[in-house]
Amino acid sequence: MMKLTVYLAGEIHSNWREELKEKANKANLDLSFVGPQTNHDRSDDIGEAILGKQPEQVYRDDAASDINNFRTNVLMQKADIVIALFGEQYKQWNTAMDLSSAVTLNKPTILIRPESLIHPLKELSNKSNVTVETVDQALDVLKYVYE
Amino acid sequence: MMKLTVYLAGEIHSNWREELKEKANKANLDLSFVGPQTNHDRSDDIGEAILGKQPEQVYRDDAASDINNFRTNVLMQKADIVIALFGEQYKQWNTAMDLSSAVTLNKPTILIRPESLIHPLKELSNKSNVTVETVDQALDVLKYVYE
Amino acid sequence: MMKLTVYLAGEIHSNWREELKEKANKANLDLSFVGPQTNHDRSDDIGEAILGKQPEQVYRDDAASDINNFRTNVLMQKADIVIALFGEQYKQWNTAMDLSSAVTLNKPTILIRPESLIHPLKELSNKSNVTVETVDQALDVLKYVYE
Amino acid sequence: MMKLTVYLAGEIHSNWREELKEKANKANLDLSFVGPQTNHDRSDDIGEAILGKQPEQVYRDDAASDINNFRTNVLMQKADIVIALFGEQYKQWNTAMDLSSAVTLNKPTILIRPESLIHPLKELSNKSNVTVETVDQALDVLKYVYE
Amino acid sequence: MMKLTVYLAGEIHSNWREELKEKANKANLDLSFVGPQTNHDRSDDIGEAILGKQPEQVYRDDAASDINNFRTNVLMQKADIVIALFGEQYKQWNTAMDLSSAVTLNKPTILIRPESLIHPLKELSNKSNVTVETVDQALDVLKYVYE
Amino acid sequence: MMKLTVYLAGEIHSNWREELKEKANKANLDLSFVGPQTNHDRSDDIGEAILGKQPEQVYRDDAASDINNFRTNVLMQKADIVIALFGEQYKQWNTAMDLSSAVTLNKPTILIRPESLIHPLKELSNKSNVTVETVDQALDVLKYVYE
Amino acid sequence: MMKLTVYLAGEIHSNWREELKEKANKANLDLSFVGPQTNHDRSDDIGEAILGKQPEQVYRDDAASDINNFRTNVLMQKADIVIALFGEQYKQWNTAMDLSSAVTLNKPTILIRPESLIHPLKELSNKSNVTVETVDQALDVLKYVYE
Amino acid sequence: MMKLTVYLAGEIHSNWREELKEKANKANLDLSFVGPQTNHDRSDDIGEAILGKQPEQVYRDDAASDINNFRTNVLMQKADIVIALFGEQYKQWNTAMDLSSAVTLNKPTILIRPESLIHPLKELSNKSNVTVETVDQALDVLKYVYE
Repeated sequence: MMKLTVYLAGEIHSNWREELKEKANKANLDLSFVGPQTNHDRSDDIGEAILGKQPEQVYRDDAASDINNFRTNVLMQKADIVIALFGEQYKQWNTAMDLSSAVTLNKPTILIRPESLIHPLKELSNKSNVTVETVDQALDVLKYVYE
Repeated sequence: MMKLTVYLAGEIHSNWREELKEKANKANLDLSFVGPQTNHDRSDDIGEAILGKQPEQVYRDDAASDINNFRTNVLMQKADIVIALFGEQYKQWNTAMDLSSAVTLNKPTILIRPESLIHPLKELSNKSNVTVETVDQALDVLKYVYE
Repeated sequence: MMKLTVYLAGEIHSNWREELKEKANKANLDLSFVGPQTNHDRSDDIGEAILGKQPEQVYRDDAASDINNFRTNVLMQKADIVIALFGEQYKQWNTAMDLSSAVTLNKPTILIRPESLIHPLKELSNKSNVTVETVDQALDVLKYVYE
Repeated sequence: MMKLTVYLAGEIHSNWREELKEKANKANLDLSFVGPQTNHDRSDDIGEAILGKQPEQVYRDDAASDINNFRTNVLMQKADIVIALFGEQYKQWNTAMDLSSAVTLNKPTILIRPESLIHPLKELSNKSNVTVETVDQALDVLKYVYE
Repeated sequence: MMKLTVYLAGEIHSNWREELKEKANKANLDLSFVGPQTNHDRSDDIGEAILGKQPEQVYRDDAASDINNFRTNVLMQKADIVIALFGEQYKQWNTAMDLSSAVTLNKPTILIRPESLIHPLKELSNKSNVTVETVDQALDVLKYVYE
Repeated sequence: MMKLTVYLAGEIHSNWREELKEKANKANLDLSFVGPQTNHDRSDDIGEAILGKQPEQVYRDDAASDINNFRTNVLMQKADIVIALFGEQYKQWNTAMDLSSAVTLNKPTILIRPESLIHPLKELSNKSNVTVETVDQALDVLKYVYE
Repeated sequence: MMKLTVYLAGEIHSNWREELKEKANKANLDLSFVGPQTNHDRSDDIGEAILGKQPEQVYRDDAASDINNFRTNVLMQKADIVIALFGEQYKQWNTAMDLSSAVTLNKPTILIRPESLIHPLKELSNKSNVTVETVDQALDVLKYVYE
Repeated sequence: MMKLTVYLAGEIHSNWREELKEKANKANLDLSFVGPQTNHDRSDDIGEAILGKQPEQVYRDDAASDINNFRTNVLMQKADIVIALFGEQYKQWNTAMDLSSAVTLNKPTILIRPESLIHPLKELSNKSNVTVETVDQALDVLKYVYE
C-alpha cells in the first residue's frame, strides 16, 4: 500500500485532526499526517520564545510568523495531499493562504467547510480538487485513493 | 520608462483602485492596472448570466467562481506586480487566495491592511514583499521602483 | 485594452472559429486567434507533402503528426487562453490532448461541448476553468475579462 | 534493482491491468502499479456516494469527476512511468487527458493502441515515447529498462 | 501575422543560414533569426580577444566557451523555435548540445540532417519535433505554421 | 536589432553604471539598463521614509530591505542579462545574493571583479557565465551578442 | 517522526556544525546534516589534487571551485532545509551564494548572524524564512518543526 | 552515508562503467549506477525486436530510438549525478544530448574526455560542473562528496 503524507491546514480550535487521524488509523490507511502548530498560544508566542522580547505587537507577530512560515514550508513540501478545514469562526486567512499555495503548486487538495461558508469560499472551493462538509467525507475521499 | 502591469486584488466595496490609478497617473508612472470584477452583483451573478439558472445556491456560486477564476487566471499571468488590500469587513478569502498564489509564483507583492488586521494577517504579511497601511504608501513603493 | 492571444483547439469540420472571430471583432475585443490547420486533407497530408512518400499509412500518419505537433507547440506557447470545442462526431483525441496540455501548463481554459457529451467529458470539464455549451457563451466569458 | 511505479491509464472494461501485473510479477520486475478506479459504476457514482444526491446528471458527473481527478492527481505524481491503453470502443477522453498530462510533465510514456486507431491517435502517439499494439510489447519495453 | 524568433544552431561552414533567411524573407514570413557566432576564428578567439592571452590551449578554449555559452544563453531564451543543422563533417557536439537543451526546455525544434547521418542522430531526431533533410523542407515547416 | 534589458547589480559607490550605459549608447547597442537604488542613504532610509520611524536599527533595516527586495524582484524578472560588479571594499553580500539568484533562475550572467578578489569569489565566478575584470570587457561581451 | 536533511552553509573556521549536530542528536531530532568541505586547505586544493598542477592561481581557484560547486549541487538538491551561518570575519560570498540559491529554489532557510552583521545582511535576512543570532536559536526553530 | 544514483552516459565500446563501479565499490561509496543499454547490437535492434520488422533503415532506427529514449528518460529522472564519457571514436551525439539535457535540468555533472577532444567539447565542458580526463579522476570527485 502506497504511503502518503497529508498536510492538515486550517482550524486549530477543534479536535478535527485527532478525529481524522484516528479514523484513518482504524481504516488501516497508510497515511502520515503533518500540520501547523495547533497550540494557539505557542504559535503566537514562538517568535519571542526564540528571538526574545520584541518592542511592539507588530514585531512580535512578525517574529512568530517567520517561524510558523518556516515550519509550514518544511512540512508542505513533504505533503502529497493538503486538506484544509474552515470553521464557522475566525478570519482563517492562513488557511486560505496554505490552500491557495498548495493549489498553485499543483498538490491534490480537499476543502472542508460548513454549509454556511459556501458563498465566501466559492472561488477557493472551485480551485480545490474536492469540497466536502465533514471530516468523514474527507476520509471517504482518502479511502477512495486506496480502493 | 519600463511599462509594468499591476494586479489589484482585494476589497471591492471602496474606491481604492480608482484612487491609486489616479495618483499613479498624476505621478506619470508607466503602469497599467488590472483586477477582479468590482461590481459585486455582477461578480456573483456572472455564472447564471452566462450558463443559465442553476438548481441551488451552491451551484450558482460554483458557476460564478468558474468564470471569476478564469478571469483572474488570465490577468494574473500578465501581472508584473500584485497589490492586495484587506479592509476591515468581510471574509476576503479571495484576497488571501490571490495574494498567496502570487507569492507562490514569485511575483513581487504589496499587502495593504489596516492596523486592526495586523494579527490575523501576520503570516500573509510575512510572506509578502512589503506590507503597508495605506494606498499612498503602496504608491510610494511603486514610485521607488522608478527612482 | 490588454491584447490577448487565444488558441482555438478542437473540431475542424464546422466554421465555429470564423463565427467566434467575427463576433469578437464586432465586440471590439483586442484578441488574436490561432489554432490548428483546419483543412483536414492538408493536415493529414502535410507529412508526405514535405518529407515525401512514406512506405505505409502508419509512417504517413507519423510524418504528418510530427509537423502538426510542431505547429501546435509553437502556437500554444504564445497563447494566453485556450478554448477547446468538441462536436458530436469524431474521436477528437487531439482536442483532449491540447486541452489537457493547456491545463497542465496552467493556461486559462474554456471547454465548449454539447449537452450530449457531458458524461464522457466530465473529468476534462472538471479540470478546465469554464465549461459552456455554445460559442456565444465562450464569447461572453472572453468579454467578461475586459469588463 | 530499481523500484519503479507505473500508472496504468485507459480502458477499464477489459482485464489488461491484471494481465500486465501478473506478467511483470512473473518476470520479477520490481514494479508497483497504480491507476484509476476500474469499477465503472463506482467511478460514476463516487460523487453522490460521498457528497450526496445531486439535482441533475451534470452535477452528479461533476461531483464524481472532482474525486476521480483528485485520485488521479495523487497517484500520477507518484508515477515514474505512465502507460495508456486505448481500446476499440468508447470515447476515452480521460485516457487522452491523462496521457497528455503525463507527456507535458515529461513523464516517460507508453501508448498501447490497436491498429484500427492508428489514424485518430497519431498526434498522441507522436508525443508519447513509445507506441505499441499489445500489452506484451509494453511489458517488453519495461523489461528493457532493467536489462 | 505572428512574429516569431528562430535560433539557427549548427554548422557554421556553409551559408545555410543566409539561404534560409533569404527564402523566408521572400515568402514574407514574419521571422527574425538569431544564432551562434558563425565566424569560426572569431568564435575560437573571443576568449583571448576579451580576457587576454591564456597560458595553454585548454584555458584559451575555456575562455572562448564562457563567452560563446553566454551568447547562446541570451539568444536561446528569446527563441520561439530552434532549428539545428548537422553537416557531413565535424564533431558538431555544440549542435547536439543546443538542440538537446531546446528540447529539454520544451521549445519547438526542427532537425536538418543529411541521409548519411540518420543512424548516429537517431535519438536526437526522435526527440525533436520534426526531422528533415534540406533547408527548403525546414522552410516548408515554418510556412505551415502561418497557413 | 534585438532589444535586451540588463540588470546591473553590485557596487553603488562608483559610477560604473553611468560609464557602461554611456559606452553602450555610443556603440549603438539596443540595451536598456536597470538596477538597484544607487543612492546609499535613500536605500538605507526607504523603509522609514515610507513606513515611518521604527523602534530600533534592526527593524529600520528590515523595513528598508522589504522595499529594496521588492524593487529588485520587479526589475530582475524583466532582465535578460545580469551583470554584477564587486569592488575592493564593503561586504557586498547583496551583490552575491542577486548574482546567485540570477544564476539559479538560469539568467545569463557576467561577473566583474578586480584581480584582488579572485580567491574569495572563485565559486561565484565559476557559476557565472563570464568573469571579467573591467567594465570595458563586460561591454565587449555585450557587443559580441550583437555581432 | 519525519526524517529531514539539513544543509549547513557558511563559516568553516569554527565548530558550529559539530555543536549543532550534537545538540540535535541529544534532542532526538531525526535530522541528517550535510555541508561543504570544512577543511579549508582541502577545499582550496581539491582542484589541483584531482586535476593536477594549474599554471596560475586563477586557474587553480577555478579548478577547485568546479569541484566544490559540484559537491554543493549534489548535496543541496537533497536538502529539505538550509541553514547559513555568517561569522564576524571573512568575505563569505559563498555563504551568501548558497543561501540565495536556496531561497530562489524555495527551500526553507534559517540565517544565523551576529548582531554586528545586521546591516550588511539585511536583504539576505529579509529573504530568508528566519534570522537568528545563535546556533541554539536555530536548533529551537528545528525543534519547533517537530512539536 | 547518503545513497546516490549516478547515470553513466557515453561510450559503450569500452568497459569504463565496470571499472568505475568496481572502484566505487572498493571505496565503499553508497552509489548505485544506471545507464544506457551497452550492448550495441541490442540497442540498435530493440525497435524491431519489440515492434517487428520495419520497412526501411530510417524507420528501424526511429523504432529503436523510441525505446532507447524511453529508457533514458526513466533512468535519468532517478539520477542524482550524471557522468558522461567521450571516447576518441564515434560521433557520440547521444552522449552530448544526455549531458546537455542533464545540465539543463540542473543535475550535477562530470564530463570525462581525452586530451584530444578538448577543443570540440569546449562548450559542453564549460557547461558541466567538472571536466576530467580519466575514470579515476571522476571517482575522486565522487569520493570528495562523501568526505
